[in-house]
Amino acid sequence: MIVVLKKEATEAEIRHIEQKAAALGLKSHISRGEERTVIGFIGPEDKLQMIPLEIFPGVEQVIPVLAPYRLVSREFRPQDSLVRIKEGVVAGGKKLLIIAGPCSIEGPEMLLSIARRVKVAGATVLRGGAFKPRTSPYDFQGLGEEGLRILKSVGDEAGMATVTEVMDPRDVALVARYADMFQIGARNMQNFTLLKEVGQARKPVLLKRGPCATVKEWLMSAEYILSQGNFDVVLCERGIRTFETETRNTLDINAVPAVKMRSHLPVIIDPSHGTGRWGLVTPIARAGVAAGADGLAIEVHEAPEEAVSDGAQSLLPRKFEAMMADIRRVALAVNREV
Amino acid sequence: MIVVLKKEATEAEIRHIEQKAAALGLKSHISRGEERTVIGFIGPEDKLQMIPLEIFPGVEQVIPVLAPYRLVSREFRPQDSLVRIKEGVVAGGKKLLIIAGPCSIEGPEMLLSIARRVKVAGATVLRGGAFKPRTSPYDFQGLGEEGLRILKSVGDEAGMATVTEVMDPRDVALVARYADMFQIGARNMQNFTLLKEVGQARKPVLLKRGPCATVKEWLMSAEYILSQGNFDVVLCERGIRTFETETRNTLDINAVPAVKMRSHLPVIIDPSHGTGRWGLVTPIARAGVAAGADGLAIEVHEAPEEAVSDGAQSLLPRKFEAMMADIRRVALAVNREV
Amino acid sequence: MIVVLKKEATEAEIRHIEQKAAALGLKSHISRGEERTVIGFIGPEDKLQMIPLEIFPGVEQVIPVLAPYRLVSREFRPQDSLVRIKEGVVAGGKKLLIIAGPCSIEGPEMLLSIARRVKVAGATVLRGGAFKPRTSPYDFQGLGEEGLRILKSVGDEAGMATVTEVMDPRDVALVARYADMFQIGARNMQNFTLLKEVGQARKPVLLKRGPCATVKEWLMSAEYILSQGNFDVVLCERGIRTFETETRNTLDINAVPAVKMRSHLPVIIDPSHGTGRWGLVTPIARAGVAAGADGLAIEVHEAPEEAVSDGAQSLLPRKFEAMMADIRRVALAVNREV
Amino acid sequence: MIVVLKKEATEAEIRHIEQKAAALGLKSHISRGEERTVIGFIGPEDKLQMIPLEIFPGVEQVIPVLAPYRLVSREFRPQDSLVRIKEGVVAGGKKLLIIAGPCSIEGPEMLLSIARRVKVAGATVLRGGAFKPRTSPYDFQGLGEEGLRILKSVGDEAGMATVTEVMDPRDVALVARYADMFQIGARNMQNFTLLKEVGQARKPVLLKRGPCATVKEWLMSAEYILSQGNFDVVLCERGIRTFETETRNTLDINAVPAVKMRSHLPVIIDPSHGTGRWGLVTPIARAGVAAGADGLAIEVHEAPEEAVSDGAQSLLPRKFEAMMADIRRVALAVNREV
Repeated sequence: MIVVLKKEATEAEIRHIEQKAAALGLKSHISRGEERTVIGFIGPEDKLQMIPLEIFPGVEQVIPVLAPYRLVSREFRPQDSLVRIKEGVVAGGKKLLIIAGPCSIEGPEMLLSIARRVKVAGATVLRGGAFKPRTSPYDFQGLGEEGLRILKSVGDEAGMATVTEVMDPRDVALVARYADMFQIGARNMQNFTLLKEVGQARKPVLLKRGPCATVKEWLMSAEYILSQGNFDVVLCERGIRTFETETRNTLDINAVPAVKMRSHLPVIIDPSHGTGRWGLVTPIARAGVAAGADGLAIEVHEAPEEAVSDGAQSLLPRKFEAMMADIRRVALAVNREV
Repeated sequence: MIVVLKKEATEAEIRHIEQKAAALGLKSHISRGEERTVIGFIGPEDKLQMIPLEIFPGVEQVIPVLAPYRLVSREFRPQDSLVRIKEGVVAGGKKLLIIAGPCSIEGPEMLLSIARRVKVAGATVLRGGAFKPRTSPYDFQGLGEEGLRILKSVGDEAGMATVTEVMDPRDVALVARYADMFQIGARNMQNFTLLKEVGQARKPVLLKRGPCATVKEWLMSAEYILSQGNFDVVLCERGIRTFETETRNTLDINAVPAVKMRSHLPVIIDPSHGTGRWGLVTPIARAGVAAGADGLAIEVHEAPEEAVSDGAQSLLPRKFEAMMADIRRVALAVNREV
Repeated sequence: MIVVLKKEATEAEIRHIEQKAAALGLKSHISRGEERTVIGFIGPEDKLQMIPLEIFPGVEQVIPVLAPYRLVSREFRPQDSLVRIKEGVVAGGKKLLIIAGPCSIEGPEMLLSIARRVKVAGATVLRGGAFKPRTSPYDFQGLGEEGLRILKSVGDEAGMATVTEVMDPRDVALVARYADMFQIGARNMQNFTLLKEVGQARKPVLLKRGPCATVKEWLMSAEYILSQGNFDVVLCERGIRTFETETRNTLDINAVPAVKMRSHLPVIIDPSHGTGRWGLVTPIARAGVAAGADGLAIEVHEAPEEAVSDGAQSLLPRKFEAMMADIRRVALAVNREV
Repeated sequence: MIVVLKKEATEAEIRHIEQKAAALGLKSHISRGEERTVIGFIGPEDKLQMIPLEIFPGVEQVIPVLAPYRLVSREFRPQDSLVRIKEGVVAGGKKLLIIAGPCSIEGPEMLLSIARRVKVAGATVLRGGAFKPRTSPYDFQGLGEEGLRILKSVGDEAGMATVTEVMDPRDVALVARYADMFQIGARNMQNFTLLKEVGQARKPVLLKRGPCATVKEWLMSAEYILSQGNFDVVLCERGIRTFETETRNTLDINAVPAVKMRSHLPVIIDPSHGTGRWGLVTPIARAGVAAGADGLAIEVHEAPEEAVSDGAQSLLPRKFEAMMADIRRVALAVNREV
């Protein structure tokens, strides 16, 4: 922690700050410059973060030196983490993780039909929502446990791992019975109650980035899960909110290499939500793989016109197959495989 | 709902759309312009919103005509709503609702001392967090039920109503036993599970705007609560996330009159979180009242230097008193009172 | 300037940085913490800013200590600046600066009629565009010199000072012949060629904030003008670009007190452009004055329906009069006057 | 143009709007829905855009149907444009346009040395700034005409085309004498004076996207240039401003395929400015090519530590060579070549 003092800070004010730090077990180190005096603190920074130094008399600015996350950082674990979702389905290795399926689970036949198509094309994880976070209370809210049952049976039949969103901390145990991986949706990225609950569960977590979360906050939310003992977290970039209205969200491709510098966790992208337009899904999926993403989450629907949610961003199975052909080529160009 | 067709849309495509609408019980109305053909639909728009018209062949753009919220709108209830928080404490009338107190409840003496000071200065609702949403899992998470007990006993002793944040749907009944009003924090504005739960409770709700929520989404979240039968919602603008780093958030003063045009619900502002800097709290509080806000939520702490959270944005009691003197004058200028 | 080193930085890397700084005449001051080593530099910081320390081997982060502006800062001049626009028309004192008029100058009768109405209501500066920056090349671009001539003659006849936008550095001398104050529009806030040109002129400048400029960048643009010798700058907050679509821009009320803390320059707000909706102009104007703004810039048009630009955000003269009645009351409440 | 009326709109109000439109030569087409009446207008939409329909009595919302740009649109020219920069150097075809060089021109030896390295690696256009837009008036502002002379002589010697920024409309003729392509910098994207000036010149233009410009506004700025007769425009995405601080800007990869859907103009990306961190340049460059960009603009410097501007985002020549090896592989995967 570094504290920059105001030009007019007095010696008494400096002593007051030093005493406060000393009481917490930190040593202070003063540099008196021509225009400003600066104090650096030596010792456990997290103790200092408990007190609002910025309002101490004489203080102009407080600058943290260390990133606020530990367990998710590359410093904690330099090598890439591998997250095992199911026998033979792993995120973070050479092979890309391809998650595909409809936004909502609408029924068993539809889901099985999609599952078979996407599996042949290269997907290993089936997605589908049983609990849907909808902006409007009047929109379809998902099939609930019935949807989970369908997801599990279709996943078993198609030989795929499954991922589905959990929204309510009371549903964590229920979802764990049916699915191989929890999804924490973007709107719940800072639902700390929920993060702690999945942190105590024994299944991997797909943590979507919140639409206005910084990379640092996203990693802090992952830290919540790891801090409860669950290290199996896969990060998913799904677009941030900006002033641009051409796309529903702005998929932040820069976050992919930026996160991989800071953290050992696998990171994938969701170009369906990230752009909100099916015509942009394939080029952005290619871009994600080229940028170093460990996988993709893609919405696929056999009849987007009939979809009860997010049809506008879903690919038809045959478009998904065409996309996967592109992805294989780009993956090869960056030493990855499908 | 209006559908703008592509220049090259065919008659077959137009018929396909009309048939789809007819199956839902809507009539179509076609306008053929020089450059574009446009279809307007007559009938219940919400049915049409279930199908993703934007991906139908021939469609260029889909434009909703009605706002997606109903119960919160001025069309539903033209006159301002009054929300009764406790005997004699009402939001939305001529008298401003002044909420004050520390960010976190740290202990009974501290809280009582603050409560007495702010009450004399004009506050009628005491705030204080027992459950704290913190970005870092290593930060102070609140005193829990012990904090609620302190809040209630201090509120009773000081003769003030109380408001406190609820984060976990499982805690709604617990919080209801102790506090007069639920607070839904900014990060939980789209925690729909929680919204439904407080919607079924019988206490008023202070609904903070999410840091990247549009006014429309904020009103939709209020609609969730009203749609469950609880009409006692007070909206609270507390700053949105922008590119600006001079302030922690950008308090969106424009949202105050904009919401009052669209909705009958009372709206207050929180300049403490909205700016994150105590030196800006007073001028922005004055601005909020001048813009037509129905009240203020202000963080007050007797020793911000010692506060376990958000000290940097807290006012000392004597600064709160000075602020209230300003507020009285501005309130008078806009025909309100404290 | 403070440099935070990587955990693994070597002694050779540290020496390399120190030598670089020494060559520029700066002394280094090293603090070795438990987890990080930090170097502070003593001496003229601007020299160090010329070299990209962040890419030196071993460097993790570079933190500037001083604000990059000088002449506009409160440190340079602690007391508020008064900017004289014309005999008896001054910005920055107790009396608010009220600028009013149409977006574009459309003709002499219309302008004179508006000028008379707004002057009676309390405006002292007449605004009107002769050169219009329009997003579309096919939109009305202004009357040019003919417009300037009309502005001057109407200003003289009505006894008001005048302000008008200059967009082309080649037009600075021309505009100076006709108007009392230059306006630099939001889109030109970082048109450095233009800033230097008005910096060398002898007339005051109304510098609008760019829609995505931080407060710091805005002050840096003012610094450009002051650095050329022209100290007569009035800042104008006119809304920033955010994700919110309810208003055309998001008027950043927080910038008003934030700028006044950092700078001695007067700052006014433009609620017409800041919100883009005439129904919000009055409440936001009240908010601006309550927040401490030194004045207002308001679009007024006698027939907004017929306006060739920005009619949607213009007030009718009678609405302007009603607004001014509100403003007088709020001004009084904060010890200002009209 | 579609106008949605308020629920309570009267017949007189409807007639008033129809008469206004009729006076401009447009036909109105009324659809009376259950909850709302909607008027569609048939005829030249640009005439209607001149009047602010949103403030007519009875009007709730005005919705434009056509994009405001014409010449840049795919409707105007369905096939991709090829922009010839110099003999053998073309943007928009199968071969990617690779622009490389330092941020600022610092001297002839340095520039020649970089030019030779990047040319061998596959670049065909040399970039370098002679006029630099700098946030601070105290920063290095470029070598001016001397820099242009160096650029031309080095370009000739190395056998490369050249591009350089023009900031002042008075310098357009001067720059045209030395360089093969104008660059319009991000901060000048809406400097309409400058856009018109390069629109009347006979050299191609590299138009950078403004940091807070929507795709639509960017295309409108290109329309300014085309509307003056200069159709040789190459668009360059260089990052938008968001709340994220992990990268200097957020390179908006989504804009690449989105622009290619709307416009026939070539679009390239600038990952150096787009991210502001040299460590992210290569992955984002790969992503750009994978997303369908027609080329790259990359900052290269032989000694970034000594660069007078933007060293932190520059690649060393050997890193540029390594990047180009990656780019060749990704280009091949998407049927492009270097």
